[in-house]
Parts: sequence; C-alpha cells; structure tokens
Amino acid sequence: MDTAERTELVTRFTEEVVEVDEIEALFEERENPTAYIGYAPTGEMHIGHFTTMRKLADFIDAGLDVTVLVADLHAHLDDAKSPFELLEARSAYYEAAIVGMIEAAGADPDSVTFVRGTEYQLEEPYTLDLYRMLAETTLSRAKRAGSEVVRQSENPKLGGLVYTLMQALDVAALDADIAYGGIDQRGIYMLAREQLPDSGYDKPACVFAPLLSGLSGGKMSASEASSKVNLTDDDDAVEEKINGAYCPAGEVEDNGVLEYLRFLVFPVFEERGEQFVVERPEEYGGDLVYDDYEAVEEDFVSGELHPADLKPAAAAAISAVIAPVREQLLDNPELLEDAYPEKYA
Amino acid sequence: MDTAERTELVTRFTEEVVEVDEIEALFEERENPTAYIGYAPTGEMHIGHFTTMRKLADFIDAGLDVTVLVADLHAHLDDAKSPFELLEARSAYYEAAIVGMIEAAGADPDSVTFVRGTEYQLEEPYTLDLYRMLAETTLSRAKRAGSEVVRQSENPKLGGLVYTLMQALDVAALDADIAYGGIDQRGIYMLAREQLPDSGYDKPACVFAPLLSGLSGGKMSASEASSKVNLTDDDDAVEEKINGAYCPAGEVEDNGVLEYLRFLVFPVFEERGEQFVVERPEEYGGDLVYDDYEAVEEDFVSGELHPADLKPAAAAAISAVIAPVREQLLDNPELLEDAYPEKYA
Repeated sequence: MDTAERTELVTRFTEEVVEVDEIEALFEERENPTAYIGYAPTGEMHIGHFTTMRKLADFIDAGLDVTVLVADLHAHLDDAKSPFELLEARSAYYEAAIVGMIEAAGADPDSVTFVRGTEYQLEEPYTLDLYRMLAETTLSRAKRAGSEVVRQSENPKLGGLVYTLMQALDVAALDADIAYGGIDQRGIYMLAREQLPDSGYDKPACVFAPLLSGLSGGKMSASEASSKVNLTDDDDAVEEKINGAYCPAGEVEDNGVLEYLRFLVFPVFEERGEQFVVERPEEYGGDLVYDDYEAVEEDFVSGELHPADLKPAAAAAISAVIAPVREQLLDNPELLEDAYPEKYA
Repeated sequence: MDTAERTELVTRFTEEVVEVDEIEALFEERENPTAYIGYAPTGEMHIGHFTTMRKLADFIDAGLDVTVLVADLHAHLDDAKSPFELLEARSAYYEAAIVGMIEAAGADPDSVTFVRGTEYQLEEPYTLDLYRMLAETTLSRAKRAGSEVVRQSENPKLGGLVYTLMQALDVAALDADIAYGGIDQRGIYMLAREQLPDSGYDKPACVFAPLLSGLSGGKMSASEASSKVNLTDDDDAVEEKINGAYCPAGEVEDNGVLEYLRFLVFPVFEERGEQFVVERPEEYGGDLVYDDYEAVEEDFVSGELHPADLKPAAAAAISAVIAPVREQLLDNPELLEDAYPEKYA
C-alpha cells in the first residue's frame, strides 16, 4: 500500500483531520507510525462508541500501531462519574467490549495495545510534566479545551480541569503520532498541539470521528434509552428502536439510521464482504441490493427507498454488526454485573 | 513541663489557634506530637519569615517533633514564581537560611526534620490522594482557600488551584498533628480540616502566626525594599531602615518596629538571657532597661519612650538577632548566587 492509499484509509469517514499532510509525512518517514484513542470508563458503551471504534480496523489495515487507553483515573476525575471502587471493574468491561468491537469490525484485537491510565499516570515523570503544564495553563484555556468533554457548571470541580491537561499529556506519554477521537475531543487535542512542544514533545496529528445523531433526532443522549442502540440489545430491541427512530422520508440531516449505515454498517460489511439488502415485495419493486452507502442515500433522497422498507433492513444489519459484541458480553455476565452493580447485580 | 505549660508555649505570640483544646488533647495523649510548617522557595527570605520561624523554638521546647517542608514544587506551581531549573538552588538556600534562623532563635536545628516536596509529592499514594481531592473540590472552594497565598487574577493558572489542595494534603502526607503558618494560610488549612477526614486522615490543629506590618506602614511588601529588613542586611542597612520606619510617637497600630520587638527580639532575647536596653543621655532620664515587651509598649504609649530613642535601640537589637543568620549566608555566598543568579551572580 502506498502513502496515498494508507492516508486515505486513515482519513476516510472522518469529521476532520489536522493535518492530512502531517499524516502523509508520517507514512513517508516510517513503516508503523502510532495512533491512540482513549476512553474514560464511565457509563455503558453503545453503538456510538462502536462507530468510532470501527475506524481502528482502518488504522490497523493502514499499518498504524494502535493503542487503546482505558483512562480509568479520568473516569473519576470528571466529577466522579465513576467511583474509585468501580474503576477496575468498569475498565475490565470497557476493555472486553472494545475487544469485541474491534473483532466485530473485522480486525485482530491482538494487534492493539491496551493500556490503563493508572499504569503510567501515577509515575513520577508524568506527574512532573503535568505540574509543569498546570503552572503554564490558565483556567479559561483549560475550561475551553474540555468544554465538550467534561461535565460543565458555573463552579466546576477541579478534577475536570486537570482532566484536560492529563489527556493532552497522554498523547506524549503514550508516544502517539496520531490522536484519534470524536470531534468533541477537538479542544483538548488542539491544546495538546499547542502545549506539548513547550514540554519538548512532538505535536500530534489529529483524526476526529463525527458524533452521530441520536435515533430520536438531535445529539445522541446517554440518559435517553431510546436514542441509541446498546451493545447488549437483542434483535427485537434493535428492531423496536430503529422502527421508532427519526427517519423522515427523503431527509438525510439528523437521520441516525442513515448515519449508522454510513459509518458503521457499510464499512463493516465491506470488511466482511457482505452486501446490504433491502427486502421488498415484488409489487413494490422487489429487493434492493447495495454495495455502497452513497447509493442508499441517493435512493432515499429520490424517494425510491422508503423509510418503511429501509428501517427493518437497517435494524437487521445493525443487529448483525453488533451480534458478536453482544454475545461476548452476554457470555461473561460478570463484566456488566461488576461494572454496574446497581443495574445488573 | 505539664500540658498547660506546653500548650502555652505552643500558642503564645500567635494570631489564632484552632483549637486550643485539640492541642491540649494532643499533649495529654502523646509525649511528642508533630507539627509542620512549609515554605515555597520563591523570593529571598526576610525578617518576616524569621518572626514566624522563631516560634519553632517554642515548639521544640514544648516537645513537638517539628518538620520544615521546603515546598519546591509549590514554588513553581504558583504562577511559575520559581523556574524549575532554580528549584534545587532555592531550596538549598531556604534550608540554610532556616537552619540559621532556628539556631539564632536559640534552638537546635538538628532537632528539626527537613523535607523537600519532591521527596514525596511525586509518589503514587500522594498523587492518587490528590486526584481524589481534585474530583471532590470545586473551583470556587479552591480559589477561596488560596486567596491570600497564591497569585490571584481573573484568569489564574491551574497550578495555583492545585497548589492549595496539595498543601492541604501535605498535612496528611507529613503526618502532622499541627499545621503551623502565617494567618494568610488559614483558608488552606481550614480546607484541610474539612477535607482530610473524607480521605481517612485526621484533621490537623492549626497555629497561625501574625503577619507583621511593613516598616513603611501597612502590610510588609515583597517588592518594596525599604519595607522590610533582609537577612543579609548589615548593621548600617538595618539602622537606616529602622530610622526611616513608620513609628509615630505613642502609636502602636501598624508599627512594624514595635511588632519586631514583640514577636522577634524579646522572645529571642529571653531565650538568650539578654535584656533590651534603650540608651539615653542622663539629662533625658538615662538608660531604660526592659525585660519584657509589655513594659516597652506601655512607655511608648505614655510618651516616656520617644521614637528617637527607641529606633536606634531597636535597630541594634534586630541586628543582633539576625547577625548569626547573616553571617551564615555571607560565609556561603554560593547559596544566594545559585538561587538568584540574576541578582547575585
């Protein structure tokens, strides 16, 4: 694979890349540049995480060495979303779910390095670097950087402010050439690009995934159960949520069903060598078979493909994509029981 | 020495004690409770530090185990007042100057334990405790606690906010029963009393020294050279500063000259077995000899003791008190040269 192909793989299906030429330069210089993505193990993982995680298959195919950080300390620092005593259990659950998603995306999870924050964030060199950054960074800069990531309030806890600097420092501590995350992470990684060179580190290139719409329209909500598909949802639950989803005929904007197809189902089906089939009675034109997402969107906008036909097909496809992850989690019920005892135990 | 005498020694010449009965209880329970005072090695030490440090002689006499923290990391965290590369040199200078002051106060510096912040503040248990506190403490609480200690602004650096939580945690990390410092430290140690029990530590008793007036009236200023006596000032420099000091006849308030006599000269002279002598010509009533400060203040208020007679006597006494510290610093010129190269090297 040449540099252009590798760069295309790394940058496709993204919201923003900063900067494409930096990624090209990495591939020109080295066989295996490094990338990392971090997750703070707070609430249960869902299909939104999966769409972001799916890209790791592209990274691996492009020859990147990929590290997944399970940022356990961060999960407590952000307004104590995860209590200290559950950090280990939630980290174990996140790691298992992420392994399942990478596998379901068609990549080999053994080629990914998993790291916990507590493995290095309590070590002296890291702490010393953090103190240097704390002494240099203003309150408003840190607030701004984390404004779409950590819980906001008029009078925030200090933990959420330190969180942003730690995440910026993680890029250097994990020796990542590329920082990858949702577009909500942009503020933090822009701060990393600004400040890491002052501490003698390289600035990272950044790849940002889009944040997908919720099924009820608008942004996906962690608190609204019907707005997202959970990784443990069975076929019926998925079907019910997709049937009830916001998906007006001909409209692409805020259409979570189309977005899941575009960013999750089609890339995974491509990896698996499968086609997306919309079953239709002969009198309504018969089955539609798609090899790429663009054709689906075209038919949906033109009215050739109606929501009533799209929805059951999308539900079946989404179910098929998440099935291996669901099975892995259901085969190990203690993962969720230990991580969320108030819900599962 | 019984509990009442020990408590009196620990609490005399202070601005506030929180709470006296806690200190009595410590002495009832143990032969050698522990106390600590911390200094961030930023600017040059001066006579204000000496008046605070003088009390360590009382602590030692009362049987406390005393730790002096040279809080090197703190000196950088507060708006980078000390650059990282000077922390070691400034810490060495502070430690030598403090040894000199303890010695000059008539106590044995070998009975004091010196600790640097970097000796334990980068270790895992400390960092983990700090992260717990950061997740629990609001921005406004930390701001308020440090409002008289760290540099203030509309948009402060994060380092100054983390500083206050670290100082609160230092009490526990140094296993101190009593936190001692100037009354400007009150906010931070009240936060320590509130928050340490949540982390499983005892709350400290607190002893606060008064902040002395500057020689030009008002608060002592770090930036105004004539407002304070430096530890390296020779006899002439001390005389000149005291002669120019704000010391109106009969007025006690904001009178730095009287305050130095009360909080520094008399306690040290008592320890040394010396008397405070005001030389006067026979025609003006002849020499005045004082064994305690109260008699000086009484004569000054009544008009019996005139500023023109008090000032040269006070200057000579202050010179005599700081002489051993000055000599120690001048015998080791590299201490100041290394710590403040822009001024001394």
